[in-house]
Amino acid sequence: MAAEHLNDELHGYYLEDLKVGMTAAYAKTVTETDIVLFAGISGDINPVHLNHEFAATTAFAEPIAHGMLTASFISTVLGTKLPGPGCIYLKQSLAFRAPVKARDTVLARCTVSAIDEARQTVTLDCKCFVGEKVVLTGEALMKVSRRPA
Amino acid sequence: MAAEHLNDELHGYYLEDLKVGMTAAYAKTVTETDIVLFAGISGDINPVHLNHEFAATTAFAEPIAHGMLTASFISTVLGTKLPGPGCIYLKQSLAFRAPVKARDTVLARCTVSAIDEARQTVTLDCKCFVGEKVVLTGEALMKVSRRPA
Amino acid sequence: MAAEHLNDELHGYYLEDLKVGMTAAYAKTVTETDIVLFAGISGDINPVHLNHEFAATTAFAEPIAHGMLTASFISTVLGTKLPGPGCIYLKQSLAFRAPVKARDTVLARCTVSAIDEARQTVTLDCKCFVGEKVVLTGEALMKVSRRPA
Amino acid sequence: MAAEHLNDELHGYYLEDLKVGMTAAYAKTVTETDIVLFAGISGDINPVHLNHEFAATTAFAEPIAHGMLTASFISTVLGTKLPGPGCIYLKQSLAFRAPVKARDTVLARCTVSAIDEARQTVTLDCKCFVGEKVVLTGEALMKVSRRPA
Repeated sequence: MAAEHLNDELHGYYLEDLKVGMTAAYAKTVTETDIVLFAGISGDINPVHLNHEFAATTAFAEPIAHGMLTASFISTVLGTKLPGPGCIYLKQSLAFRAPVKARDTVLARCTVSAIDEARQTVTLDCKCFVGEKVVLTGEALMKVSRRPA
Repeated sequence: MAAEHLNDELHGYYLEDLKVGMTAAYAKTVTETDIVLFAGISGDINPVHLNHEFAATTAFAEPIAHGMLTASFISTVLGTKLPGPGCIYLKQSLAFRAPVKARDTVLARCTVSAIDEARQTVTLDCKCFVGEKVVLTGEALMKVSRRPA
Repeated sequence: MAAEHLNDELHGYYLEDLKVGMTAAYAKTVTETDIVLFAGISGDINPVHLNHEFAATTAFAEPIAHGMLTASFISTVLGTKLPGPGCIYLKQSLAFRAPVKARDTVLARCTVSAIDEARQTVTLDCKCFVGEKVVLTGEALMKVSRRPA
Repeated sequence: MAAEHLNDELHGYYLEDLKVGMTAAYAKTVTETDIVLFAGISGDINPVHLNHEFAATTAFAEPIAHGMLTASFISTVLGTKLPGPGCIYLKQSLAFRAPVKARDTVLARCTVSAIDEARQTVTLDCKCFVGEKVVLTGEALMKVSRRPA
C-alpha cells in the first residue's frame, strides 16, 4: 500500500475541514495503574501521587493523579480526534483547577475557538471535567496542513 | 511513624527556602516502552507516535514522543526537586519547539524566576533539552506553603 | 454531566448510521515492547515470540508477534471507529496467513459487509496488512443498537 | 547450546504425540492493569473498557475486559501447552458469550477434537470460563510438525 494511501486513510482533519465551534471529547476513568505507570515513565514520584500516608497529611487527603496525566487526555482529543493525526502540537496552556483522584472519570473536551488561515494554525479551548466540576482548563495551538491538491 | 514526621522528612522546599535563580534538573532517555505505555494510559494513539510508516510520511520522518510525555519531565522536576513534595501545581504553559524521538535523552531544567510572598506562589522558567537543542519551553506557577511554626 | 449526555458524546455509530461498504482502519508498528507486554498480560510465553534463538530454529527465522496481538488491531477498529463505542462484540473468525514481526507496521481494515436490521447485527470483513501482504483475514459480527428515540 | 538441543528441550508436542481428547488449561485473574496495558498495545481505547461512567450506561454496568484479552488466554494454552512451542496457529473462531470484568478469574481450556495426519493439522475445541459460566467458545486449527527423524 502506497504511503500516500496509508496517510490519507489515517489522517485527521485538514485546515479546510475545520470550523469554529467544532468539538470533540475523550473520557476515561483514571486508575491506580495509570498513576503507577505514569510515575514510572515520567519519573514523577512525588509522594502526593504514590504515598497514601503522605497524601493524608495534605489538603488533598488522598493520592491525586499527576496533573500532566489529566492534561494528556487533552492531547488525546487533539491528536486522535480534533484536529487528529497529521496536526502538529505548537503550544498548550494549562490551569489545574481541582484535584483528580484515582477512580475519577475525566472527560476532556476541546472546541475550535479560532482559525488562522494564513499561519495554518487552529486554537482550541480545552476543558477537563470530573462530573460537573471543571478540573483543568487551557488553550491549545495546533498547526494543521491544507488538504493535498 | 507519626504523620508529621513522615511529612517533614518527605516534604520539599518551603516558601522561605526558595530564592530567585535556584535551579534543578531531571533527565532521562525516552524509550520505545515509554511511548507505548504513555499511549496506553493517555489513550493518545496518534499514529505519529506509534506507526513508523505513517511517521515517515510526516515532516518528522520517524515516530516522535508525545509532547505531554516530554512535558511530564518538567512536572518531575517541580514535584520531586524544586519546589518538591508538598507544593501545589497551579499553571503551566508549554511551547513545543522541536520533536523528541525514541532514544533521545531529555534534560528538563526549572529555574525560580519570581516569588510572590503574599500569594505564596513561585514562578519557574522551564526548559527541556535534547543535547544542546531546546525542545520545549514554558513557565510553571506553583503554590508553596510556609514552614510550619 | 448527565450520563445520557456523556454516553451520547462518546458513542459510536448507531444501526441507522451504518451502510454496507463503510470502512475504517487502524495502523501501528508492532514493537518489541508490545510483544513483551502482550506476553506478560496473556501469559503466552511461547518462545517463538520471546526467544530469538528458538525462533531461529523455526520457519519464521526470527521472533513473531502473537497472532492475537495482530487480531487485537481489528478489535481496535471495531471498538473505537466502526461501529465504535456502544457496540457489542459477538463473534470473530481469524485466519493467520503470514507472520508479523517486530517493527512491521500492521494496518487493520474493517468493511461493513452485511446488516441484519431484525437482529440488530452487523457483519464486517476484516483484513490486516503488512505493506501489500495480507497477514490476517476474518469476519466480525457486532450487535449495534438503534439510536435512542 | 546447539540450536537442535535448544529446540528439542523447548518444543511442545509433535503430531505423533497428540490424541483426540487430550486437554490443557491456563487460568489467570484479569486485573485492571491487564486492561490498561492491553488498551495501550492494541490501541483499543473503547470506553466500555476504560471509562466507568460510560460503562455504567451500558448493559454491562461496569468496565469489561477486551474480548481479545480473554481470547489471548486460549492462545496461551495453544502456544505453551497443547500443542505447545513449535506449532503454527492457522485459524481461530471466537464467540463472545458473556462479559469478563476486572478481578474475574478466567480459565481457558482447549481439547483436541480432530487430527488430520495428511495435512498435519490439529483441531481444538476452546472454552473460557469464569467460575461455571462459559464466557467464550471457539475452535482452533494448528499446524503441528512430525517428530524429526
